[in-house]
Amino acid sequence: MKELNSIQALIDSFSKLPGVGVKSAERMAYAVLAFKQEDRDEFVKAMNDVSQKIHRCPTCGLYTENPGECEICIDEGRDHKIICVVSDVKDALAIEKMNSFHGLYHVLGGVISATKGIGAEGLAIDGLLKRVKENGIEEVILATNPTLDGETTALFVAKLLEGKANVTRLGYGLPMGSSLDYADSLTLSKAFEGRKKI
Amino acid sequence: MKELNSIQALIDSFSKLPGVGVKSAERMAYAVLAFKQEDRDEFVKAMNDVSQKIHRCPTCGLYTENPGECEICIDEGRDHKIICVVSDVKDALAIEKMNSFHGLYHVLGGVISATKGIGAEGLAIDGLLKRVKENGIEEVILATNPTLDGETTALFVAKLLEGKANVTRLGYGLPMGSSLDYADSLTLSKAFEGRKKI
Repeated sequence: MKELNSIQALIDSFSKLPGVGVKSAERMAYAVLAFKQEDRDEFVKAMNDVSQKIHRCPTCGLYTENPGECEICIDEGRDHKIICVVSDVKDALAIEKMNSFHGLYHVLGGVISATKGIGAEGLAIDGLLKRVKENGIEEVILATNPTLDGETTALFVAKLLEGKANVTRLGYGLPMGSSLDYADSLTLSKAFEGRKKI
Repeated sequence: MKELNSIQALIDSFSKLPGVGVKSAERMAYAVLAFKQEDRDEFVKAMNDVSQKIHRCPTCGLYTENPGECEICIDEGRDHKIICVVSDVKDALAIEKMNSFHGLYHVLGGVISATKGIGAEGLAIDGLLKRVKENGIEEVILATNPTLDGETTALFVAKLLEGKANVTRLGYGLPMGSSLDYADSLTLSKAFEGRKKI
């Protein structure tokens, strides 16, 4: 008995997730088999929904189920003069959870990495410059991860924005080398308070 | 911005998997969003296939894509006089991987657990007794886990099979490649009991 094809395919798919090795993927696939039919249907539906309903906001890059811009970009209650720049959607979500930032976001979609040979080309920097120029943005908060690559990216973007808006960086309440995504809300909110002009 | 409904649904589904907490589930859901469309389609297809094509073998309880009995139950090349009893499908798969057992299987679908208040009712024991009685089974190998619950279950099943077939239990001892000073006392004492002349 070798692994059935459909189970193997599911194991392969689970293996592509972050932090999931072959053994964990096997456990997950078999767990799915042992699910109640109802739970399995929900899982399939969630997958389908995510695959079909969600797209990136054309302005900021966040995920949205709206046909056009995302909930945040069209929210009149938010401060449209401040943009918080993050490398990844997850980071914006972490910031939203602390519930004290009410500006807009801009997702770069990665970081510049000298070690990995990744340049600025793939990042959504042009869109950011355009937004700053056209919408009278007063402050751009650079909230890339406090890592070497995150810093590099922040400095690169700051340079481009020089004279166009106040550019700030999150305060070093964040421990270096950590991932913004894992920061607790308090640390994150301290970092927001302590942001400095660069 | 709270989590979008479809993303939240996916996070909830991932959270139901073994060893996956909320934070990991979040990472997984966002990883799925960041997948190439192709990978996401494959994932959905694998889920659907597993959900629709796979069922339990009515005889032994293994998973199969066959309309009736599984590949092992209908394989004439296997020894139909020996049944290896496991608590879970995954265990049968581990045994198949060693490639030296060529009998049939019987999946109990759990273990009797005094601490969790689980009795023998939910286990596929009747089916096992029926198979032993009707098919002239010569040996039943009880391969439940070497834990308290696994032992209890094995003893319970062995009692029911008394006089109907040879009932054996997997040997206990030191795992191959392990280090003696890391072995727990119980394993070590089992290894001493099971010592063999060389």
